[in-house]
Amino acid sequence: MALGIGDDGALVNPSINTQLVVATDTLVSSVHFPAHASAEQIATRALCVNLSDMAAMGATPRWFTLALTLEKADPLWLAGFSRGLAKIAKEFGIALIGGDTTSGPLTISLTLLGEVSVGGALQRDGAKAGDSIYVTGTLGDGAAGLDTLQHPGVEKDTQRLLERFYRPQPQVQAGQKLQGIASACIDISDGLISDLGHICKASGVSANIDSKRLPIHPEVTRRFPQQALNWALVGGDDYQLCFTVAKSNRDRIDRLIRQGELDATMVGKIQPKIEATFPVMVDKLSAKLNGGFDHFGH
Amino acid sequence: MALGIGDDGALVNPSINTQLVVATDTLVSSVHFPAHASAEQIATRALCVNLSDMAAMGATPRWFTLALTLEKADPLWLAGFSRGLAKIAKEFGIALIGGDTTSGPLTISLTLLGEVSVGGALQRDGAKAGDSIYVTGTLGDGAAGLDTLQHPGVEKDTQRLLERFYRPQPQVQAGQKLQGIASACIDISDGLISDLGHICKASGVSANIDSKRLPIHPEVTRRFPQQALNWALVGGDDYQLCFTVAKSNRDRIDRLIRQGELDATMVGKIQPKIEATFPVMVDKLSAKLNGGFDHFGH
Repeated sequence: MALGIGDDGALVNPSINTQLVVATDTLVSSVHFPAHASAEQIATRALCVNLSDMAAMGATPRWFTLALTLEKADPLWLAGFSRGLAKIAKEFGIALIGGDTTSGPLTISLTLLGEVSVGGALQRDGAKAGDSIYVTGTLGDGAAGLDTLQHPGVEKDTQRLLERFYRPQPQVQAGQKLQGIASACIDISDGLISDLGHICKASGVSANIDSKRLPIHPEVTRRFPQQALNWALVGGDDYQLCFTVAKSNRDRIDRLIRQGELDATMVGKIQPKIEATFPVMVDKLSAKLNGGFDHFGH
Repeated sequence: MALGIGDDGALVNPSINTQLVVATDTLVSSVHFPAHASAEQIATRALCVNLSDMAAMGATPRWFTLALTLEKADPLWLAGFSRGLAKIAKEFGIALIGGDTTSGPLTISLTLLGEVSVGGALQRDGAKAGDSIYVTGTLGDGAAGLDTLQHPGVEKDTQRLLERFYRPQPQVQAGQKLQGIASACIDISDGLISDLGHICKASGVSANIDSKRLPIHPEVTRRFPQQALNWALVGGDDYQLCFTVAKSNRDRIDRLIRQGELDATMVGKIQPKIEATFPVMVDKLSAKLNGGFDHFGH
């Protein structure tokens, strides 16, 4: 960084032959995190959610700014918040280059800047009929974490799920590996069906998900046998990537997976555009977004 | 812009041989603008305040993101807000490249991205003893506008002052002209004494202001004879630039002013560092920041 916090603006040096990727995310208390969340948890989640947008573009995150609105400046709270921010920033190699602290109801707004080689950005509009659909990691953890958070004390062994809510796993490295291979990519913040729907709309296609293929963590299946599949489809807050791959690139992606360089699972196929309210089907049945996917339903 | 709103992040192409300037500003209802301000006024002020940071760096503003937190999505309000934003964006040639709308108490956070030729950015830390101190435009208009806003109906002919509050005049072109000429620069958001104090601290110098030289608009002197000088010194919200110029560059700056290319006034001199609580003097008297400068005081 050429010049950091303290001047009217921050001054940074973009790398040559790159494009700049910019993403903004705002988190409001009681809306995006429980009011009782710790400052460190809030900072961690805010930065991870924003890093996930960089992952979805295949970008290398570099810098971020913070706009923090606070009821009052509580030194202990601020210390915890800074600790959370610094830890994630260090882990992902990004620098806080500026910000603004104002008085008001607790709101955190982050703007992340990243870089991607010219033409290398993963976008939403490149999926074509015949492409395979993949997801990284496991699905449903975010919703299971939120449920665990809202019903505390049922089981003690819930650390992993709580962590999945407060400390999502932005798939930055996976995103970078997908450059030149994936035809479209998005991060799963609102749920697979909803976010894959964005790819379908932007690309002018439809999609079919094979529910038996969905990667669900055994702990989620065991603890939540009734909800697991639904959460994997519509739960959201997973911050994994959903991406599509053309037939000609299937070999490359499958090799990465086989060699342990990419943790991803094939879950369905892109289809030609259909005339339907919503372009994503599950096991060739229309998916209903509102109220979740009723797989065993009427 | 290579890719705009709608993907996970925006993708833009920085110009070659430039550095990137990033500035974030947050405005909270009732703190940074009156609760009764119109949506268009709020948007206008928010963007202008942020553009002023770009001006202070000598940067060319290019892109911005918006994080908007709203109690409820009122279409009329949003239309007014968009109108204000679009008008200023067009005037300054900048593009909205992304953002985030969330539910919560009214808060507007903007991140502006600008460009500056490598090494050309105006900073705060270059002022040296012997440099002349200049300000652009007139001072005290912001405070006079705020006073007018808080005491409506006293005089009808107050449009200009109200406008100065809601529609500050970011000195973007002036900032660009100062590249290679000014030794330090800042925008006057908190008042001349406070902001010049930032230059002094960053540069390790002190400053003396000649109060007779301060450019104050005749309307402000006429309507507020008691407050005008004080507002020019500590009023804030002016969003003019304060900059310093070494002796060797005095000719260049004075020529720009004479030729009508720069509206600026010499108001004092940079002095060697002094051991004082605050580094800015007015007419060789210590300036008191809290409660304003009591020029005629005890």
